[in-house]
Parts: sequence; structure tokens; C-alpha cells
Amino acid sequence: MKICRFDGDRLGLVEDDHVRDVTAALDALPRLRCPAPMGDLLILHWDAVHARIGEIRDSAPRLPLSSIALLSPVANPSKIIGIARNRRDLAKEKIDIGGGAGARQDGDGIQMFIKAPSALVGPSEGVTLRFPERRTDPEAELTIVIGKAGSDLTEAQAMNHIFGYCIGLDMTLRGKESQSSRKSIDTYAVLGPWLVTRDEIEDPDALDTGLAINDRQVQRSNTRDLAFNIREIVTHASRFYTLHPGDAIMVGTPIGFEQVHPGDTMSATFAGIGRMDVAVR
Amino acid sequence: MKICRFDGDRLGLVEDDHVRDVTAALDALPRLRCPAPMGDLLILHWDAVHARIGEIRDSAPRLPLSSIALLSPVANPSKIIGIARNRRDLAKEKIDIGGGAGARQDGDGIQMFIKAPSALVGPSEGVTLRFPERRTDPEAELTIVIGKAGSDLTEAQAMNHIFGYCIGLDMTLRGKESQSSRKSIDTYAVLGPWLVTRDEIEDPDALDTGLAINDRQVQRSNTRDLAFNIREIVTHASRFYTLHPGDAIMVGTPIGFEQVHPGDTMSATFAGIGRMDVAVR
Repeated sequence: MKICRFDGDRLGLVEDDHVRDVTAALDALPRLRCPAPMGDLLILHWDAVHARIGEIRDSAPRLPLSSIALLSPVANPSKIIGIARNRRDLAKEKIDIGGGAGARQDGDGIQMFIKAPSALVGPSEGVTLRFPERRTDPEAELTIVIGKAGSDLTEAQAMNHIFGYCIGLDMTLRGKESQSSRKSIDTYAVLGPWLVTRDEIEDPDALDTGLAINDRQVQRSNTRDLAFNIREIVTHASRFYTLHPGDAIMVGTPIGFEQVHPGDTMSATFAGIGRMDVAVR
Repeated sequence: MKICRFDGDRLGLVEDDHVRDVTAALDALPRLRCPAPMGDLLILHWDAVHARIGEIRDSAPRLPLSSIALLSPVANPSKIIGIARNRRDLAKEKIDIGGGAGARQDGDGIQMFIKAPSALVGPSEGVTLRFPERRTDPEAELTIVIGKAGSDLTEAQAMNHIFGYCIGLDMTLRGKESQSSRKSIDTYAVLGPWLVTRDEIEDPDALDTGLAINDRQVQRSNTRDLAFNIREIVTHASRFYTLHPGDAIMVGTPIGFEQVHPGDTMSATFAGIGRMDVAVR
């Protein structure tokens, strides 16, 4: 199932080049009070929404994909985690930090950083360069969206905590500020174009990926070239943090850095997910 | 006004050693749907809640402070920003990154990092050491809570975007992982004991601050010893990010690092705010 959010507060299912507008299924969500729960409402209550979708899907209006404005499929993550330097060409160190056996427990091997949830946008919103006189690079990354809360997961448990996958653009201002700061600028976390449920991606560790800027290919890779696989990354992250429904983990990018400028269009294509076009302003 | 959240989903006003339970005022909040708005619900809709508090305050039940479990006064920040090395004894560099005059615009001078919202707890929840065999230090910091959304603020505007202040414990796992990662562990962002509205703090840049571990004083300072003042910090942060209602900025800590262990109690005392006791587990 390919789930999208669009046009402000609408929910859709992507079917080839059309979208079924199943917004009515959001009636299955409980009305919230303060405090809002930790995690994304849609993912937290997906079972109820999914059941309602089943009832209304066949009679839901069909809209051309080209006619809608796609938003981030996750609206309210409690955190966005990035994985730095997750490439085979870098040394794959594993340092035990103690406290368990079996699961990877390394401080240096998998390097995480945090992006602010306020940086999150969807493809239709585009990226606004905050400091146009400085260099900003796009990093196209497979992004894991968590489905079920979990902490200290084993590798055997990890995959069951994944809701699905989308494409992420981990926009990065170059400079001397901290990584988390430079990567948390408004619009510097693009998720989209939709969320593909886990069952549709047979092997997330063998997906062809590409990034073009104005139709010129600047990254071409496969997730098998990442130093750490999806299972290892979820397990590791869960040793530091409780992973809440809707949390997003951008798993890292291949080599192929390129500066973007206002007026550019970034097009990320991931096998099994699709293509996401994002304008730079 | 001293505003607290307690006992799960209750709202209170602190009056000396008692709390007025004004939870009924939360009825003024709109019921939410998906997606949740960016920012903390209570702060976003404070004007409506405040008006309702005015109507019910005098008849609200009074509870002893000692009988309630204090939570973070902000439930759902869109981000928690930390300021690193904000001390006079470090060089105060100012590097213009272009784009304006007057306001500070430095990449190196004020150093920010991001803490994950999922790390947030209140004093009654305590801090759980995630890797007890490694060193974790508390950093007691004046914490700004944003009241009004803003971006690219001038120094003249900055103070008007502050809702109030609370005490923050920026818990820090020492090690080689990224700063944002080590500081975003569950429970590693403690805010409390309550939120003091801006009007009650005459000069946030001249507050005596202290931190004791098991009644032994380990930090004693004054916010005037920080390299960058509150106005400068808000202005700078707003140049990188839209600051949303409820966003928290921990402004940095004086020297006085000390490891904590399970069983310890951390007590942070800030003039104009009060004292916050937090257990380490």
C-alpha cells in the first residue's frame, strides 16, 4: 500500500498515476487533547484508519497524481534521525559499549545525528535555501518510518517495528556549525512522495537509488552499498532512543555531493517507492 | 504567573507551596485532528486558556506542591535547541554570514545543536541512565520557551517572542557519538519545575543559578556569565529556524561538570524560577 498526505489535510492511496482520496478514514482517529501523544497520529492509530479505508476505498474519488500537492507522509515525528557516513568505503568499526550480547552495540560504527521535526516538509513545499550565499547539498536517502514503539530491540525484532519506507532528502548546509544545526533548517528534511508499507519492499537492502538535479544524474547507487543495513540501523537507534510511531530514520547517502541553487529541481528515484521531485527556492 | 503540568494531563498555577488545579481551563483548547499543528498546544492557544483560567482561578482546588508529580511544562515542542560552550571564558567570535546588519549573524559565535523532542521529561519522571557504565553529566541551564512563531527576528523583536522561562537539565552522555545523539537519549532533556511567564523575570541575564548533586553544590553561577545573552540567542536561532510556540532553547551551562550515578538527586535552583529536584535511576 502506498499512503500519501496531500492538499493540507487529505489522505490518499496511490494507485499508479492516480490517488484514491480516503480522507474520510481519518474520522477513525480519536480527537486529541493536550498533551498530544508522542508520535505521529496517523501511524499511532493506523489499524483503525486502515480498517476504515477498507470500507470506503472502492467508492473513494480518484484524482490524477499530477493534480495534487504531496506533503510529508509523516506529519508529526517525535524525532528525525540521520545516519552519517554510512558507506562501505569508510571503515566499519564496531566497538562494544557493553550491556548485552547479540545486537550490535557500537558507538563509532553507526553514527547518528538528530534533525529537528520543524525542518520537515513534503515534496510540494520545496526547499528554501536559508543562506543562499553558502553551499547546500541534497542527500537522497532511503528513509525508515517506525510503526510500533520500541526500545533496545534485537535484530530479530527490528524489522517488525518498521511501518514502511519513503524517500528522504537530507538537505545539508555546509559549514562549521554542528551537523544537527546545519541539517535542521526549515525545509531541510523532505520526506515523500508517499509511504510504502513494509510488505511491498521485499529487500530494503537492495534498492536501486538515484538523484538528479535538473535531469542531470548526480547520485546513482543501491542500498546494498551502505555500510550498515536497515536491521542494524533500527537496532542501533533503539539502543539510544525509544523509537516512536512515525519516527523517521534517514539511512545515509552514497557519494555524489552537488550544490543546489534556487530554481533547481531535485529528482530522487528509489526502486519500489517511486520518484520525488522537489523544487529549490 | 507560574504554570505547571502535573499528574498526567493536569494544568496548575503555582502559588508558593501550593498549586491551583486549573485543568478545567484546558476545555478552551480546540479538539485536534491529524496533522497536529507545529508547536505546543497549550502555548499555541494560551490566550484562550488564560482567559478561562481568569474565570475559574479563585474557585480552583488548592493542592500542596509536595503532593503532585510535576511534568515538563511544555509537552510538545517542535524542537529543543541547545547552546554549546556559551561561556565568557571561551573566545567570543563573531563572523558575519551575510544578509543583514545590526543583529549578530555568526556561524561560530553561538553554537547550536538539536535535542530530540522524544528525550523530554519533567522532574517527577527522573533521568534514567541509558548506559550506566559510561559517564553522564547534568548541565543546569536557563531555558527559554518560545511564545509566538518567528523567523529572522531582530534583536528588538526577540524578547517579544519569548513566552517564559524554566529550568532545563541538558543531560549529556560523554563519548564519541555526535552531540545531538548523546544528548537526545530518552529522559536526557528535563524541563521544569514550572514555566514562569516573561513578565515575572525582570532580567533573564542576571539570574543566580546553582546545581547540587545530593546537596553538594557542583555549579554556582549567574546568567550574566554566559557569553551570549538571551536576546542574542533568540535572534541567532531564529536566523536558522522558525521558532514555534513551545520550542525550548537551553542557553548553556557554566563550568562544573560532574558525573551522576543511579540513586543521585540533582537539584537545580534558579533565582526567579525556583528549585527542581530530579532523581537519577
